[in-house]
Amino acid sequence: MPQVIHVRPSASFSSTLRIKLPSRPGTLGLVATAIGGAGGDIGAIDIVHVGNDSVTRDITFDAASREQSEEILAAVRMLGGIHVIDVSDRTFLMHVGGKIEVVSKRPVRTSADLSMAYTPGVARVCQAIHDEPSRAFTLTIKQNTVAVVSDGSAVLGLGDIGPAAALPVMEGKAMLFKEFGGVNAFPICLTTRDPDEIVRTVTAISPAFGGINLEDIAAPRCFEIEERLQEQLDIPVFHDDQHGTAVVIVAALLNALKLVGKRMADLKVVVSGVGAAGVASTKMLLTAGVQNIIGCDQAGALYAGRPDRMNHVKEWYARHTNPGKERGTIHDVIRGADLFIGLSAPRLVTRDDISRMAPHPIVFAMANPVPEIMPEEASDRVGVMATGRSDYPNQINNVLCFPGMFRGVLACRAARINEEMKLAAARAIAGVVSENELDPEYVVPSVFDRRVVEAVAQAVEAAAFETGVARGVPAMPA
Amino acid sequence: MPQVIHVRPSASFSSTLRIKLPSRPGTLGLVATAIGGAGGDIGAIDIVHVGNDSVTRDITFDAASREQSEEILAAVRMLGGIHVIDVSDRTFLMHVGGKIEVVSKRPVRTSADLSMAYTPGVARVCQAIHDEPSRAFTLTIKQNTVAVVSDGSAVLGLGDIGPAAALPVMEGKAMLFKEFGGVNAFPICLTTRDPDEIVRTVTAISPAFGGINLEDIAAPRCFEIEERLQEQLDIPVFHDDQHGTAVVIVAALLNALKLVGKRMADLKVVVSGVGAAGVASTKMLLTAGVQNIIGCDQAGALYAGRPDRMNHVKEWYARHTNPGKERGTIHDVIRGADLFIGLSAPRLVTRDDISRMAPHPIVFAMANPVPEIMPEEASDRVGVMATGRSDYPNQINNVLCFPGMFRGVLACRAARINEEMKLAAARAIAGVVSENELDPEYVVPSVFDRRVVEAVAQAVEAAAFETGVARGVPAMPA
Repeated sequence: MPQVIHVRPSASFSSTLRIKLPSRPGTLGLVATAIGGAGGDIGAIDIVHVGNDSVTRDITFDAASREQSEEILAAVRMLGGIHVIDVSDRTFLMHVGGKIEVVSKRPVRTSADLSMAYTPGVARVCQAIHDEPSRAFTLTIKQNTVAVVSDGSAVLGLGDIGPAAALPVMEGKAMLFKEFGGVNAFPICLTTRDPDEIVRTVTAISPAFGGINLEDIAAPRCFEIEERLQEQLDIPVFHDDQHGTAVVIVAALLNALKLVGKRMADLKVVVSGVGAAGVASTKMLLTAGVQNIIGCDQAGALYAGRPDRMNHVKEWYARHTNPGKERGTIHDVIRGADLFIGLSAPRLVTRDDISRMAPHPIVFAMANPVPEIMPEEASDRVGVMATGRSDYPNQINNVLCFPGMFRGVLACRAARINEEMKLAAARAIAGVVSENELDPEYVVPSVFDRRVVEAVAQAVEAAAFETGVARGVPAMPA
Repeated sequence: MPQVIHVRPSASFSSTLRIKLPSRPGTLGLVATAIGGAGGDIGAIDIVHVGNDSVTRDITFDAASREQSEEILAAVRMLGGIHVIDVSDRTFLMHVGGKIEVVSKRPVRTSADLSMAYTPGVARVCQAIHDEPSRAFTLTIKQNTVAVVSDGSAVLGLGDIGPAAALPVMEGKAMLFKEFGGVNAFPICLTTRDPDEIVRTVTAISPAFGGINLEDIAAPRCFEIEERLQEQLDIPVFHDDQHGTAVVIVAALLNALKLVGKRMADLKVVVSGVGAAGVASTKMLLTAGVQNIIGCDQAGALYAGRPDRMNHVKEWYARHTNPGKERGTIHDVIRGADLFIGLSAPRLVTRDDISRMAPHPIVFAMANPVPEIMPEEASDRVGVMATGRSDYPNQINNVLCFPGMFRGVLACRAARINEEMKLAAARAIAGVVSENELDPEYVVPSVFDRRVVEAVAQAVEAAAFETGVARGVPAMPA
């Protein structure tokens, strides 16, 4: 069957067109028809100016790609009597000057304000922290602030684009931390790739932060960096590409298993892609009781003793998974699997592969923007399907986890994030979907469901206290 | 004469007392009398609750010290029939949870918002920066964001208190950056003192920043760190304790010289304290045309060939100053000086020292909170006097410089801050005080004078273009 990629117009290719049209009935219709005919999806139409014999309008439209945007523009320009004044890309416009800002929580308008917030009053606060360092968690931003740290080596689908080009992603993450979790986050984009240097740098800047969120750092370096940083620091270190993804996958799985009537211990799981997310998800599934997991990379299934394309992380992986020592490609080992987890590349599996899975298979195809298999192709053969996309049901999105996770750990001053806390977060996310709401198209809540962050934060905090990693926030000095 | 330190009640020792008083005429008067009698200065009195036979009130008062606060409280507790419910230190209260926050410039409420600010839309912005790195100055926070970097080794009058205890000062600085200059600033408090490590760390985190403000780093390390960082980075590096202070001193001096009718080239200047601020002020005065400057440290005047208590910075200083090779203590070399600049310790000079200066001497006594000589002691013997305090005329405060300085350099993407730009800033600050406003008690504008930041930013930007360090902010990708 032909592999047509159905890409719909979306806000990520949204433009605003400013045009001057003659004041004549039907002209706007011509423009709208031209945009629609070229595949554009029209949103708001605003009047900017009404002249004697002309009207200036802003027309916002979504396209499916940059190329389509340009085709739409060309179609409008072809129309007679219409003057295109300006066209602006809304995504670029919203990035001008950055997406976040640092603001003062209180105005500084008088000498009294200045003398409390800054010299000389601030000296007493400094002295109080010097006398008892844990007071920094009460009297400074450390209480509620996270560093979003990246070296720009594995950014989205773009790969190794470097720290400056990664900054818009880290700013976006900081936006989400505040908007979804009420947590302050600041981007730390690093010019170094060396694990020693990264550990040293993040340690050096740690005093202002209550937690470290690692982001978009390539595997296998990311594992070592996270582990070493957590050893050095007494604040939680969390590589979101690993654990955020793992938590949301487990959340989705908990609900999916209820629908297909299977148990963790009985599953055969195939994981396509053994990078940061694949390895962390596998570890979390093992902790959750899954016994048979087979990881695949570009060389096929990982098994103990595989001679080629190994590294120390893959060696570990091979030793702890694939108890049946299955070999071959993804198309071979997917046979009889109950769960497919795709964290790899577009269109890697076929309808036939899905047909050869166990009855009522669960398919989490999360390659972005094009999944391992499109929902349209698989829907009639799966029990439950999820992707990483917002335009299909069951979006597996880390934003379900990290805002609540950090809100929870900061609230109780947890020293680290352990397995119990991650599992608590997964259960909390799953629990937002009630038993009677549960449906193959609704196994994870919407990212805009405001109940999620509260549920995750409370569950994480409770688990932190139960497992003894919560330290509580110190009282104000008397 | 007795050396009484006159310390007035101030907001930096401000408390709010919540008390329950019987509803009987005269009771509030008794409380107010008790507070005033113990030296407290009463501010707002608010009613919290009116009961049948009692009233609960919040009484805010300033004291001169922590001890006096407690004496005032004891005096109130001694009154019969009055119940003290609670007392809170307003300075500590305003620090709870920190003084700044990171916020999103736009709400994230819909999938369209998310797809433009984050995946998938953000990928196009990342790609545009990857294609042309200077676009980070247009499409990210780098355009308008400064790192406030400290190792906590020379904080206010507190000295070496470490990075965590220094954080409230750096947060305060970030507040001032935004409130006065509209510039985003974020605190980077470092766990290391090693210049190599500091240079390496700040370089590593530089991609998100358009400028580096070094703060409260001890001399002589601060000089080397600033110089090496500026060599490495293509964004301005500015040690505020050095250059901010120097700029405001020169601004005050420019106006003071008009009042006393002297010229830079003819001055004899004595600088007490050759730390960060003393060295930078000396360099800037030399650039401005002063020829005879004598620096003093605890061992007395610095001169070429002095055998004791030298380091490489003091060697430099001695070679470039004190052309008459004067020796002795501050009390010796102050004889005949036109300008005394105090950046050292409380009460270091006497009325007699001032009397032995040249006619109409200018005295900038900036030790904090207690100056080298109190204005009350010197006022009848000086031409112009300034301090670092907000409760006397002519406050020499860095906040007159740094917000406008960084706003100017960020607006034109200056690669560094050179001598011409600092001198332009000093002239701009001085210029805010018009010729007919000029008065011995008004040689620098108020820190709350909103004209200052605009004047400084424009002057700095113009000087950056004139001297070729401005690069302009790149246009949006077409």
